[in-house]
Amino acid sequence: MMKKCRVLYDFSGETDNGELTIYENEVLQIIRQDVGEGWWEAENPSGQRGLVPEAYVEQMVEENQGSKPITTQQSTVSQDDEWDDDEWDERASQSSYDAQQQDSGLNGNNYGLSAPNRQFKQRNSEASARSGTVKKNFASRFSVFAKTGGEAYLLGGGPKKGASPDGTIRIIEAEDGPRWEETVGKYTCEIKNPKKESKLKGIKSFIAYQVTPSNTGIRVSRRYKHFDWLYERLAEKFTLVIVPPLPDKQVTGRYEEAFIEKRMDQLQRWMNRMTAHPVIGPSDVMIHFTSCTDEKLWKQGKRKAEKDEFLGAAFYQNIEPPANNLDVATIERQHDTFTRFTKSFDSSVAVIQQVIHDYSKKHLGPFKREYQKIGNSFTELATTFNLDNRPNPEGKDDPPQESVQLTEALNFTGKTYEEIGELFYQQPKYDLHPFEDFLKEYGGMMSCFPDMIHFHKHTVQTVKECQKQREEQKMDFEEAEAVKKRADVISYAMMAEVNHFHRERVEDFKWIMQVYLKEQIKFYKSLTIKLEEALQKYDELDR
Amino acid sequence: MMKKCRVLYDFSGETDNGELTIYENEVLQIIRQDVGEGWWEAENPSGQRGLVPEAYVEQMVEENQGSKPITTQQSTVSQDDEWDDDEWDERASQSSYDAQQQDSGLNGNNYGLSAPNRQFKQRNSEASARSGTVKKNFASRFSVFAKTGGEAYLLGGGPKKGASPDGTIRIIEAEDGPRWEETVGKYTCEIKNPKKESKLKGIKSFIAYQVTPSNTGIRVSRRYKHFDWLYERLAEKFTLVIVPPLPDKQVTGRYEEAFIEKRMDQLQRWMNRMTAHPVIGPSDVMIHFTSCTDEKLWKQGKRKAEKDEFLGAAFYQNIEPPANNLDVATIERQHDTFTRFTKSFDSSVAVIQQVIHDYSKKHLGPFKREYQKIGNSFTELATTFNLDNRPNPEGKDDPPQESVQLTEALNFTGKTYEEIGELFYQQPKYDLHPFEDFLKEYGGMMSCFPDMIHFHKHTVQTVKECQKQREEQKMDFEEAEAVKKRADVISYAMMAEVNHFHRERVEDFKWIMQVYLKEQIKFYKSLTIKLEEALQKYDELDR
Repeated sequence: MMKKCRVLYDFSGETDNGELTIYENEVLQIIRQDVGEGWWEAENPSGQRGLVPEAYVEQMVEENQGSKPITTQQSTVSQDDEWDDDEWDERASQSSYDAQQQDSGLNGNNYGLSAPNRQFKQRNSEASARSGTVKKNFASRFSVFAKTGGEAYLLGGGPKKGASPDGTIRIIEAEDGPRWEETVGKYTCEIKNPKKESKLKGIKSFIAYQVTPSNTGIRVSRRYKHFDWLYERLAEKFTLVIVPPLPDKQVTGRYEEAFIEKRMDQLQRWMNRMTAHPVIGPSDVMIHFTSCTDEKLWKQGKRKAEKDEFLGAAFYQNIEPPANNLDVATIERQHDTFTRFTKSFDSSVAVIQQVIHDYSKKHLGPFKREYQKIGNSFTELATTFNLDNRPNPEGKDDPPQESVQLTEALNFTGKTYEEIGELFYQQPKYDLHPFEDFLKEYGGMMSCFPDMIHFHKHTVQTVKECQKQREEQKMDFEEAEAVKKRADVISYAMMAEVNHFHRERVEDFKWIMQVYLKEQIKFYKSLTIKLEEALQKYDELDR
Repeated sequence: MMKKCRVLYDFSGETDNGELTIYENEVLQIIRQDVGEGWWEAENPSGQRGLVPEAYVEQMVEENQGSKPITTQQSTVSQDDEWDDDEWDERASQSSYDAQQQDSGLNGNNYGLSAPNRQFKQRNSEASARSGTVKKNFASRFSVFAKTGGEAYLLGGGPKKGASPDGTIRIIEAEDGPRWEETVGKYTCEIKNPKKESKLKGIKSFIAYQVTPSNTGIRVSRRYKHFDWLYERLAEKFTLVIVPPLPDKQVTGRYEEAFIEKRMDQLQRWMNRMTAHPVIGPSDVMIHFTSCTDEKLWKQGKRKAEKDEFLGAAFYQNIEPPANNLDVATIERQHDTFTRFTKSFDSSVAVIQQVIHDYSKKHLGPFKREYQKIGNSFTELATTFNLDNRPNPEGKDDPPQESVQLTEALNFTGKTYEEIGELFYQQPKYDLHPFEDFLKEYGGMMSCFPDMIHFHKHTVQTVKECQKQREEQKMDFEEAEAVKKRADVISYAMMAEVNHFHRERVEDFKWIMQVYLKEQIKFYKSLTIKLEEALQKYDELDR
């Protein structure tokens, strides 16, 4: 049965990009829902096909009485309820949610960076809208820090809390600058076998993933909400460390196989990045997440992590930087360089994203149609050539053998171009979509930059302020030196993290370019093979 | 110096097809004039580029005083004069030209066929507008025949004129139906070495082609106007034989190398078709055209050919058909089959032409831009990555080696996609334009169909009319039998010609499909190679 949807809002599609213009209340036939990136392929009542934004339409369920939106078709436990109760069972009270919404406003401040492109901004606010617990969002995290623990740490070291469960974190001097010391026991986590499980007599269902860390080899079962919890812990604890948000949580098609596979893949990439980080990987909370199998211990560990005092500014108390003092001019230059890099990176990633997005949509619409039009025109010509029925002495009207063979070859060519059209349609799955996903992941990482930069800038300013005060005899030498020492810790941490980021970036972009180009090569080779098969049909006519 | 042109008429371009919207009096920069198919690539004052129809613009010549249209820049002997005097020195008086213009009106009658597509119609009328001598155009030729010689031949055999210089033309029964008998001495003609020559002290110049027939091996020199003369002789003589019009004569860029090469190529294909035809190839006028080297003999032969009496209906007096009488029902069925074929062929060729035309324009604009956009986005990313200058212990800010290499690889990828864009731009030259030229050639052949069908239909109707009269005792048996015998000659000729056409069609379409597919394969292989080179840069980073 053909699925249908009703148009909720007018949408003026760019034909050039394969989009369909749709009008409120129009009923469309859904051709494909796994197009990705928030698009469906649909056909309007005039038979035109194209891409429509899924947010602009609402799927209907066919009934004998007619079509109704699918949501009204649910049991009394609506998808929304289930979603809240199941995935958000640790959601905080509405008031804290409101407070957090206010915090989100701070997100608009992008710390002198160029305006983040819409997609990232959206992600960012999605990420904060999503964090149901009382944790602060990115922007507020640093503001709060500056107001309380951050300045306190810099100026006076903050309250001494003794040894952190994570121990001392060392920064060493390496060839390419300061680095986080790699501790022994680097490990990875394999995420696999997503299983739909349910509780409350099947009313609530969720996906459980099997997580197997390489250091223990013992698998644990984790749900998306557990990953979300882990993300919140890491983000609040590791100031100045890039903790990218989790992959988007989508409601639509949450239990569809393709979606589950994709989300698992994205969680895997997120997890790889976290376990590979020299500071995050060996941290207590990560070890707990990846190794705890006992339900009681799990809850204990959770509570302990939530009460961790070595977070935000306090996290720096356990960092041991290299012995050399940093000079302020160098720090400032480094700061500016990185700021320039992030601005430029932000804009060039936005450009690639746009180009890839458009190119991908062209594959789904115009390119496919172009090749199918070519195919159809050959098929039509073959149909014409079938009308070659010359009379022969036997009185039969069959066309001569060569004519029949040519017609067959043309038909084959027609089919070939139809298939090439389909290959174009399928291709983005293999090259452009992975690239888009990859860039989204980087978008998540980039959303951490403004806070890092703001925080570090604040540090540098504080140091300069103290120096000034010392020169004016308002602060004594020892005190100013102590501030500078603590600021060095922060600058070293920033440099180590930037260094870590760059090393990852080089590896990651090398990898994605290889993936992309390999798939592009495969694609053009497959076209070549198809066309060679078609050519062969004509070459055979010579024999 | 950048060439410019002034817009003569508003033109609303389809962006989708890479066209540029232009406005009267706007001055454009000409980017490329060898795009083909009547298009130039130009840039408007806002810096947008796209295709513009060359007929809508007028090229300007830069002078110190400013820009002037190029035509005002010519010597007192304007291009038009030269054209008329040189190429049209056998042009008839204005009155006969007018008469011929009236004849053209008959072209509108398409004999019950579907409306020929615009392009063919245009060709047809171009062809008739072009025939400067007193010869009839296609449509009028048959109408005249029906009014005079045709009916006379059918009903009474027409005036006996004795043996034709071309001798007897036999139609034989072959496996695939009636065929023109192939006489010995089949030959080809090689056309090459186009040379610009001039007369009247260089005021008039023209292109002379070297024509070397394979049967004599002695080369003769012929100009376009000689080919045109030959075409007129063949078209008026060989009723019911497909004599396609010559390739278009273009004024613009008449002496440009690319144009001359292309026209020579088209003349070559036209000539091949004519010499290969079992009736046309061995004809007196063809032998004269291909072998006469002496100027005096050339003029004598010309006059003789122009006075040939065995043309139109009289041509049938020298045809010897197979012994078997044809039955009217079979003839009618054959007639209808061919009519159906031509209608269908007409429309499927029009479809392919449109598809190829659009596809070709997309290569020149959107496709090229798409790949260059991809290239630019990689290049831009490389520029960003150049900003990776982490401090290292030596105090240098150079990025580490891996980072530099990645940036280089990205730059290379950017360049690769730029080049791929350029390959897309160039590609139509190798596959789509030859295909378009080929279809145009077939368009010319197809323009002969309506007259053939009309003529044959007239014959069949006359036969049926005579049979009716005989049944009504208004015509005696012998007379009716004699009409039927002469009608059989015409039907056999039609069948032989249709058969010949189909055999050529099979060969020709096989050939063009091979050309097309081979070039397509080459193209996709070249993309693969380019991408493999780009991929290698990343693979090298692993070492």
